[in-house]
Amino acid sequence: MECGESVEQIVLRPKMTVGELVAAMGRAGAYNGGALARAADIYEAMLRDKAVTRFVGLAGAMVPAGMGRIVSDLIDAGFVDVLVSTGANLTHDIIEALGCRHYHGTASCSDVALRDAEINRIYDVFLPNESFIRFEEFMQERFGDLAPQAPLTVRKFLAEVGASLPSGILASAARNGVPVFCPALADSMAGLQYWLYTQTHRPILDAFGDMQDLLSLCFSAESAGALLVGGGVPKNYILQSMLMTPKGFDYAVQLTGDRPDLGGLSGATLDEARSWGKITASARAVTVYGDATITLPLLVAAVRERLGV
Amino acid sequence: MECGESVEQIVLRPKMTVGELVAAMGRAGAYNGGALARAADIYEAMLRDKAVTRFVGLAGAMVPAGMGRIVSDLIDAGFVDVLVSTGANLTHDIIEALGCRHYHGTASCSDVALRDAEINRIYDVFLPNESFIRFEEFMQERFGDLAPQAPLTVRKFLAEVGASLPSGILASAARNGVPVFCPALADSMAGLQYWLYTQTHRPILDAFGDMQDLLSLCFSAESAGALLVGGGVPKNYILQSMLMTPKGFDYAVQLTGDRPDLGGLSGATLDEARSWGKITASARAVTVYGDATITLPLLVAAVRERLGV
Amino acid sequence: MECGESVEQIVLRPKMTVGELVAAMGRAGAYNGGALARAADIYEAMLRDKAVTRFVGLAGAMVPAGMGRIVSDLIDAGFVDVLVSTGANLTHDIIEALGCRHYHGTASCSDVALRDAEINRIYDVFLPNESFIRFEEFMQERFGDLAPQAPLTVRKFLAEVGASLPSGILASAARNGVPVFCPALADSMAGLQYWLYTQTHRPILDAFGDMQDLLSLCFSAESAGALLVGGGVPKNYILQSMLMTPKGFDYAVQLTGDRPDLGGLSGATLDEARSWGKITASARAVTVYGDATITLPLLVAAVRERLGV
Amino acid sequence: MECGESVEQIVLRPKMTVGELVAAMGRAGAYNGGALARAADIYEAMLRDKAVTRFVGLAGAMVPAGMGRIVSDLIDAGFVDVLVSTGANLTHDIIEALGCRHYHGTASCSDVALRDAEINRIYDVFLPNESFIRFEEFMQERFGDLAPQAPLTVRKFLAEVGASLPSGILASAARNGVPVFCPALADSMAGLQYWLYTQTHRPILDAFGDMQDLLSLCFSAESAGALLVGGGVPKNYILQSMLMTPKGFDYAVQLTGDRPDLGGLSGATLDEARSWGKITASARAVTVYGDATITLPLLVAAVRERLGV
Repeated sequence: MECGESVEQIVLRPKMTVGELVAAMGRAGAYNGGALARAADIYEAMLRDKAVTRFVGLAGAMVPAGMGRIVSDLIDAGFVDVLVSTGANLTHDIIEALGCRHYHGTASCSDVALRDAEINRIYDVFLPNESFIRFEEFMQERFGDLAPQAPLTVRKFLAEVGASLPSGILASAARNGVPVFCPALADSMAGLQYWLYTQTHRPILDAFGDMQDLLSLCFSAESAGALLVGGGVPKNYILQSMLMTPKGFDYAVQLTGDRPDLGGLSGATLDEARSWGKITASARAVTVYGDATITLPLLVAAVRERLGV
Repeated sequence: MECGESVEQIVLRPKMTVGELVAAMGRAGAYNGGALARAADIYEAMLRDKAVTRFVGLAGAMVPAGMGRIVSDLIDAGFVDVLVSTGANLTHDIIEALGCRHYHGTASCSDVALRDAEINRIYDVFLPNESFIRFEEFMQERFGDLAPQAPLTVRKFLAEVGASLPSGILASAARNGVPVFCPALADSMAGLQYWLYTQTHRPILDAFGDMQDLLSLCFSAESAGALLVGGGVPKNYILQSMLMTPKGFDYAVQLTGDRPDLGGLSGATLDEARSWGKITASARAVTVYGDATITLPLLVAAVRERLGV
Repeated sequence: MECGESVEQIVLRPKMTVGELVAAMGRAGAYNGGALARAADIYEAMLRDKAVTRFVGLAGAMVPAGMGRIVSDLIDAGFVDVLVSTGANLTHDIIEALGCRHYHGTASCSDVALRDAEINRIYDVFLPNESFIRFEEFMQERFGDLAPQAPLTVRKFLAEVGASLPSGILASAARNGVPVFCPALADSMAGLQYWLYTQTHRPILDAFGDMQDLLSLCFSAESAGALLVGGGVPKNYILQSMLMTPKGFDYAVQLTGDRPDLGGLSGATLDEARSWGKITASARAVTVYGDATITLPLLVAAVRERLGV
Repeated sequence: MECGESVEQIVLRPKMTVGELVAAMGRAGAYNGGALARAADIYEAMLRDKAVTRFVGLAGAMVPAGMGRIVSDLIDAGFVDVLVSTGANLTHDIIEALGCRHYHGTASCSDVALRDAEINRIYDVFLPNESFIRFEEFMQERFGDLAPQAPLTVRKFLAEVGASLPSGILASAARNGVPVFCPALADSMAGLQYWLYTQTHRPILDAFGDMQDLLSLCFSAESAGALLVGGGVPKNYILQSMLMTPKGFDYAVQLTGDRPDLGGLSGATLDEARSWGKITASARAVTVYGDATITLPLLVAAVRERLGV
């Protein structure tokens, strides 16, 4: 056993950039601050490596928390090749793209009073019910418009939706030809809207068709890297996709608030993924435990500063 | 503001039953021990109330941890009307039903060495790769056998799989006619097997068809209760299913290791669900924070003791 | 790398004892349920081994949560040789011994309204201010009565306090001659009472005198074991006490809700303690992550059942 | 119930300063990212308000993680009036001031091998044993030098130690006349050194003498604010100090990785402290859940940027 570099005490200075702060965290090098700095090193390498197909997994209520634009900006900058998201994040992305807003609220309140006021709560974010009325109109129109193209995979459907929106994750993905996968679309307000549509219309979506597209991307990738925001379906879906190929992820960064000792995949370490072959034995990988509303902006701002873009 | 009952110090005695211990936790009444006792009260009431349709959500790697039999025994005892599970739990349920086993392992080990030994790790549980070979044979056979009945909803497919297995959650569900939903089946080894099947055969599964079945159950339910083990897709899918009806859940118990302040649904309180109308304003609901490998057996053993079954 | 025993699915049955449940958790063997069962094995061995000096560390608001009696009963049963506690737990132990009570409350309330109602909150436990008036009377009397014996170490002072109380941890410790250490007494309401006393009287307490007593116990111990409820000062104080001797703890069980990745000692694994020599290289040691209001009663009830006492 | 400001999606740009990032987090406003931005607002107000006595609580292994310099720089900048620390942080501060270093390590290693290599582990930080030899020499010399001034309160002792060191928290505090309290000094390597000293010398330290000094500071403070890094003894000791006065804290910021639902004070919300009167009914207070190796540098860098110092 040997010691590594010495821990350098962090020296802050006014007007220091985020990149400078994360570099200082790296020289300190301990606990999750150190892990975040290593994550920046790995994510930078992953974005600089032209041979890498870059996957992003998006779970947790990130769009309502104002993190969606970080993802759409990454897409616009060419840093995302494949996005896998929960249905909820896409639902809220569409809602914002339609001009509706999420609002600052509080977690210390009467949820019954909120219900009476027709406000939905996501921890300390408030979302008025009227957003879902606007969402319903939009989605029902989309389903109707796209029916002639049926059967549509979810990926193709989301591309069409994105193409009809002015801004947001789906819009950026559509504009840049980045595929968006949502393996559990049924488990979201978007899925409920689809169910509503099928009450009076023929089905138009094919849920399993996407697996072929994703697996093809995996087979054709020279090497692969993953930025995993939260756990859930996106994390597992991305990591398992490599199991059918002889390859594994070569770079992986995970930002999660879960813990490994509960056994669930969301909190599982990336080392565990090595035993399965989801990431390679030599992959550069790190998990940062913490709230992604803090770690995601820090990570991406630092790496974009390094890349100068 | 007023004080409630006094906190009664817990008195342990040798040979006390689990039900007696949980009752003592209830008289102490504090923190998660108190929450667990309230969960037992609510779950008992939910099981005694004949008008209630009982939903169970199953997320986290519960079957590899030996918690699957608790669920299948609940099904056999008639205490489950609807089960929503992750694909992973069903995959591991099938693996065990096929006679393969999970093994005690350790989380402090070299995952590269495990990979070389062809052992997959789930925190401190080990699962040899050969299980997946047996799983593949079984699943490919099932897909082939069931192809003539296509298109099959996932629910119907899982019922057929369960009918062909000697034991486990799916077998119990099939035997008792309990529907099992798996909205993110694609996100599991079972989903990958289906993809493999479709490489050489026509598709046979219809992912969205289940939504109608689940929503019909919701519309026809006189009242509803939910036992949510973990968060993830099962929790949201169960709770959102009521949004399309004029009703909400009247009873809800959540066992989770996540935390509310990160904003994700897995850790969200059940109070938050009241603002959405997923559970009713007057619903009896409680969240127990902790590892379900401890809280689930405690809860179910205590409630079964009370019910004498 | 090799697999261990197979994971045995847990089979619950009505009226099963806590010991039977924990045994079943041990055969399942995974995550924190498995850790709890291993903790029971270690704690049982530590209590059966007559050569062991048994330390108990008590942190977190355990007495207000009804966990104090578990500790005093362990003392009365002869299972505790040394107790190290936070000042808060001893304060609340005295309050209960004086006939005041803690009450069931709620964490979802207005703390300003509670303040107006003169009720103090500990998560979901309520404690009326009047308890502290009774506590003040008692403590000031004690200080006055004991002044002639000054200087008193904290340990001796606590023994005298315990001897004058009818029940509780301090009373049991006094009755059984078990030393109680409280290295951070100043950091508690008991400490504030002492400060108040010294406003008008000469000092009577010697805080550092206890270190000699504790170290002597360590030097004279043939072997040593520790049950650590929570982290904080008690955990560190117990573990560090061995550093001055050529020995280390041979048995250690830790129940904590903290996590290792934040670097703090409260969440640190017991393996980390091996690097310092606080526990021996071959020590049997396990950490159970979770709320001690659940894990402590489970652990102790199971072990007492095994011991038949 | 009403909605607040709208959630503004975070827009990152290369070279943005930490202050700009935290401002963007504040406009997003959700979860712990939003809490961190509110913490910056409160901490800025607390530092701008000349009537405020500023307390800092320091718990968790912050110095080994490179966070010590942030604290000493705050002291040098005149932003700390009272510091309350664990003994461990002061021990490691002295070790660094003596020229010894902490090193980057790993949490995935054999602690028995570390023990053989005479390296102590703090999560992923390594500290060679030889540091403690140097620490012992220094401390024994200090005790000897200061014996003529006995009895010394811990505060005065720490001031003398700081005056003899070239750098670090204690040195900055001594240079600036900032009192440093360490109510649980016995519970640290520094405490063990004191015990060692008293094996052959008369006692020189008075542990309880500090309470008068701290309470005097509380009584004389016009108003008070607290920055609480971690929980433990420092958090409680600071907050309880106001209980004896008619006042309470008017500003409070807490950075913690613990959670409220376990009942312990380290994870308790600052709202809970309102019920006790530790903070005022109208106090501006916020808790940021997360690893202080991330949240502390972010918070302080942002606030120093705003203050231009």
